[in-house]
Amino acid sequence: MNTTYFTIDKNFRCHGGTLRYLSHESETTKTTMRFTLFTPPPSQNDTSTLLVFLSGLTCTEDNFTTKANAYLKASELGMSILAPDTSPRGTQVPDDNSYDLGQGASFYLDATQAPWAEHFQMETYLIKELLPRVEAYFAIGGQGKRAITGHSMGGLGALNLHLRHPGYFNSCSAFAPIVAPSQTPWGIKAFTQYLSEDQDAWQSHDPCQLVASLDRSKHHPILIDQGLADSFLAKELTPHLFEQACEESGQRLSLRHQDGYDHSYFFIQSFINDHLDWHQTLFAIQ
Amino acid sequence: MNTTYFTIDKNFRCHGGTLRYLSHESETTKTTMRFTLFTPPPSQNDTSTLLVFLSGLTCTEDNFTTKANAYLKASELGMSILAPDTSPRGTQVPDDNSYDLGQGASFYLDATQAPWAEHFQMETYLIKELLPRVEAYFAIGGQGKRAITGHSMGGLGALNLHLRHPGYFNSCSAFAPIVAPSQTPWGIKAFTQYLSEDQDAWQSHDPCQLVASLDRSKHHPILIDQGLADSFLAKELTPHLFEQACEESGQRLSLRHQDGYDHSYFFIQSFINDHLDWHQTLFAIQ
Repeated sequence: MNTTYFTIDKNFRCHGGTLRYLSHESETTKTTMRFTLFTPPPSQNDTSTLLVFLSGLTCTEDNFTTKANAYLKASELGMSILAPDTSPRGTQVPDDNSYDLGQGASFYLDATQAPWAEHFQMETYLIKELLPRVEAYFAIGGQGKRAITGHSMGGLGALNLHLRHPGYFNSCSAFAPIVAPSQTPWGIKAFTQYLSEDQDAWQSHDPCQLVASLDRSKHHPILIDQGLADSFLAKELTPHLFEQACEESGQRLSLRHQDGYDHSYFFIQSFINDHLDWHQTLFAIQ
Repeated sequence: MNTTYFTIDKNFRCHGGTLRYLSHESETTKTTMRFTLFTPPPSQNDTSTLLVFLSGLTCTEDNFTTKANAYLKASELGMSILAPDTSPRGTQVPDDNSYDLGQGASFYLDATQAPWAEHFQMETYLIKELLPRVEAYFAIGGQGKRAITGHSMGGLGALNLHLRHPGYFNSCSAFAPIVAPSQTPWGIKAFTQYLSEDQDAWQSHDPCQLVASLDRSKHHPILIDQGLADSFLAKELTPHLFEQACEESGQRLSLRHQDGYDHSYFFIQSFINDHLDWHQTLFAIQ
């Protein structure tokens, strides 16, 4: 491991732990990629567990870190948290004028279509490049000690990466995720661009389809929090479709409807501690 | 009370309580003023206590609200938190190209000098206009149930408002405050502009001078947290000067030096819960 692989751009003490803003030259996306990493203070019962948080449309590696209020609980649990950027970026990277396509809107998949395929390889980037390197470099995570969560488009990313790579993540949760992208506008638009108009190619990136195709009865339950005042609920998020798919496939699901909460980070911060506790509990009973 | 006095610009459910972004036309500053207010969920042991948080240079009403992670603890304690903007703003309001003077840099005092005096009346605005109206409108705070804290320039504001209005706030704390503005560059620059070059006028806005001029032995102790990796520590913040002034005057002070912490909101969020507990404890033993 080349110890200069990551550049530490900023470094903060936070709740006794260390919060770093890092960057590196990615072989996968062929761009400079940024992320934040919180590591808890060393302790005798250090668990070295790692939670990945994938952010939603328009976000960067900064939104979760500054707004989600996760690091007090992470410090108490001995949990590290990795928050990647939402896409490759740069003047050489294709983009779109709309907020829901291109830079800031990768949907965490490997694009197969021009002009996106050259840089938009976020699934391979996360699973094959970023996570192995971060885990080796910082001596955290690894098999059975690695979980994933996310918000909105990032909730979709968390569900997809968890379901597409069985066992890679010990557990999965999500905040207001897109769950049926083949049937909802953000997903249809992105999949058409990134994966072509061939809807067969969409199915393996749609949690409702993925969960139906596997025997999920032996897997950990999935936790989803959904605000009932979320303006995207009916049109883009449709949690009832995932609830139905889980019921049919035997995937255990804890879907919590949170009265009065919207799609913002004020919603996320209100329930983030529950998600950290959830993953830590599932690490312990693996 | 005119119930349309405040405009609710944004409204979020957060940790069971309500977070509002509000604005109003101020008679004191003759501008539109903005602030955020968190009110906890109703409970049987609702204390209706109110903490005012004054932010530092360049901030708005948004920084504390999104970055300080205060609302979980506030919700648990039944405490409301008011975070005002750091100055009047608008095209008609004087400004300066530097970050430490003009809009975003009021120093929370009543300016006496042109061109500032017309709008920069933040002390009167806070004490005589905003706080009475917020407390009446939302049925929170009031004598003995009102405390103040702040960060950097806002820590100076908290100390000054507390010391200049004995008894108005039940207790005071601060994060990395300016404590000797008559002797440090930010303070000297601002006081010269807002209060004239007459240094006699500065003394009544300098916590080290104010604390020396009163018998403080019967007042609640003041809590200050100061990061030791704060790049402004030696030149602008000088907490040892306030420590010395408190010792000489009998003002009890808990000055905590926090190893490794800098001047950021990652420092504030690491200790904000301690401050909320501190104020709530002092409300109870008033």
